[in-house]
Amino acid sequence: MTENFTDEEKQGFYKAIYSRRDVRSHFISKPIEDEVLSKILNAAHHAPSVGFSQPWNFILIKDQDTKKKIKESFEEEKNRSSQLVEEPKKSKYLSFKLEGILESPVNLCVTYDPTKFGPFVIGRSSIPEAGLYSVCCAIQNLWLSARTENIGLGWVSILSNDTLKETLDLPEHVIPIAYLCLGYVDEFAEKPDLETKGWLPRLELKDVVFFEKWNDKENKNWEKIQKMIKENLDYA
Amino acid sequence: MTENFTDEEKQGFYKAIYSRRDVRSHFISKPIEDEVLSKILNAAHHAPSVGFSQPWNFILIKDQDTKKKIKESFEEEKNRSSQLVEEPKKSKYLSFKLEGILESPVNLCVTYDPTKFGPFVIGRSSIPEAGLYSVCCAIQNLWLSARTENIGLGWVSILSNDTLKETLDLPEHVIPIAYLCLGYVDEFAEKPDLETKGWLPRLELKDVVFFEKWNDKENKNWEKIQKMIKENLDYA
Repeated sequence: MTENFTDEEKQGFYKAIYSRRDVRSHFISKPIEDEVLSKILNAAHHAPSVGFSQPWNFILIKDQDTKKKIKESFEEEKNRSSQLVEEPKKSKYLSFKLEGILESPVNLCVTYDPTKFGPFVIGRSSIPEAGLYSVCCAIQNLWLSARTENIGLGWVSILSNDTLKETLDLPEHVIPIAYLCLGYVDEFAEKPDLETKGWLPRLELKDVVFFEKWNDKENKNWEKIQKMIKENLDYA
Repeated sequence: MTENFTDEEKQGFYKAIYSRRDVRSHFISKPIEDEVLSKILNAAHHAPSVGFSQPWNFILIKDQDTKKKIKESFEEEKNRSSQLVEEPKKSKYLSFKLEGILESPVNLCVTYDPTKFGPFVIGRSSIPEAGLYSVCCAIQNLWLSARTENIGLGWVSILSNDTLKETLDLPEHVIPIAYLCLGYVDEFAEKPDLETKGWLPRLELKDVVFFEKWNDKENKNWEKIQKMIKENLDYA
């Protein structure tokens, strides 16, 4: 497997990267085909994992009672967290559509099981969180795969993990990492909703890249790439 | 942006997903072009982030003294962690090539800054780790983009984060998430090294997917997909 990617293959990959969105309000009722869903899950399962520990599980959810309990937890947590922010941001925050739990045909909880293949997992002794990082890589694979299949995905993090654990019968040692809403959509927005609505701006690449040390933006060994990044070339 | 992906575009995406590897031993001396490196960084920067907080930074490293310090930390941590495992696994573990710090032309530290756009970030009040999850999504974007550009990437998690923080001048509140080695390679292996070497097996998809609740593998609402997953169809 040393062959290069063709221009068209690269284009497909970057299309997934740049057109992926966190979707909350464009779900349509069309069900997700089982074959498509299994493709997406398989892509997630082929993520990298520390010491090849594959510490993820995926719980598919269609049951309306389950969805309603999670939605209630979302509403509680949304109200609770709104107390942390001052007006006028508070009203703006409360006006946002931040989940599609009931409208999306499939909900999916991704969990982390630190006991799988344990206790000794290569690469997890110095940095115990590495197992959790692997689960996040699987989620990103899943998200990008969903996009190539034209499935929208929204990650709901405004909810109580205790409610999730209880509702989904998770064992004590299993940690819920993500609660995702999946479904076909009538549109993928051009930009993230929070950018469009003026909540926060997209940072420029030059604001997030340093050279050799934290906060070093000038280093003569990296002059050409510094210039390229500053000029904000579009490489997509 | 509602257009479908063409078959060729999908193929490019899934090629990245299934041929990506964690690379430690196939680096060649060919330098990475600045344009390619900036493409990879830009793909990482277009990951999803909780509340659009974009909490990542990328520190590019070529300095040999820095690399040597990190390599020393790796050796120390590798020896320390080998004490946690019994023979004959211990000798096997110690025989593995687990990093390419000095052989890869570019090292890259990806960090998490919880203060960016803080303290109130949408979606981070109930689950504070959500910011850290965003950084991992960026790392996976970076990894897949590297693969499409034929760049190998190895994630070194056998090292001390304290050493990383000190060596790279990270502020107290900034958390190093990943230390990555990047470079062109003469081969992407067909399978993960730890699978080839018999350390751990690849789990089957049916072992990691549940329906409606933890550990439920039989549910009549999901009969067709359960059957598909059990039959281990290749959807790639």
